[in-house]
Amino acid sequence: MKNEIQKEGIAELIISLEKQALEIWNNGNPDAYLALSDTDVVYFDPMLERKMEGLDQLTAYYERARGMVHVDRYEMICPVVQATEDMAVLTFNLNSYEGDKVYKWNCTEVYRRNSVNEWKIIQTHWSLVKPLGDSM
Amino acid sequence: MKNEIQKEGIAELIISLEKQALEIWNNGNPDAYLALSDTDVVYFDPMLERKMEGLDQLTAYYERARGMVHVDRYEMICPVVQATEDMAVLTFNLNSYEGDKVYKWNCTEVYRRNSVNEWKIIQTHWSLVKPLGDSM
Repeated sequence: MKNEIQKEGIAELIISLEKQALEIWNNGNPDAYLALSDTDVVYFDPMLERKMEGLDQLTAYYERARGMVHVDRYEMICPVVQATEDMAVLTFNLNSYEGDKVYKWNCTEVYRRNSVNEWKIIQTHWSLVKPLGDSM
Repeated sequence: MKNEIQKEGIAELIISLEKQALEIWNNGNPDAYLALSDTDVVYFDPMLERKMEGLDQLTAYYERARGMVHVDRYEMICPVVQATEDMAVLTFNLNSYEGDKVYKWNCTEVYRRNSVNEWKIIQTHWSLVKPLGDSM
């Protein structure tokens, strides 16, 4: 029972960390995601030929995106957190609205608790919802 | 040091479990992935509008794919395993060759150790490499 209460607390915490970083990202600022990511972070998105490994690579990549993103509002859809004591997986769909456009995303974030009890992202996977429509 | 050796062992085990299931999948048979997945598995792929939740949904979905996949050979590129005691994240790129065609994938698998010491998939995220080319 105690364990279940703790896990409930982890889910709320993880979703809250993610939303804070996302809202800052949505204003063109990658700093919060970078501060939340650990040194060994692995990263996928639809613009990359291969996954990225490590915070140095991700920092250089995100610097080039600084000031480029302007999301007016977002919906985090059906977030799910699956947690053990030291690792937690957050999965969700995301609708990001920019003016008249909506971008639909799939997202998997893996968080790991470090030695000073902070949860840090060690894996990020962003992909587009049905990028080829119904042709697959 | 002991901990590092154990983690090394986990990485080899996780990659081996994944390759076994993938090779059976590549012959049109989803049974190995279904047996390897836990009841609360969360699943993304490029054909879905929303993530799928739970083994029942995934089983019904994979049944419709039975016999449809015929991959001649594959390359698992730069697999990385990030592990704690009870959870492990496997990330890799995958090239799947079917005749003259090559399909390029991003993949994140999260494994969790259960109470009888088996590692089971609790999250699968498949996405296409650069599905929109260089237009994003």
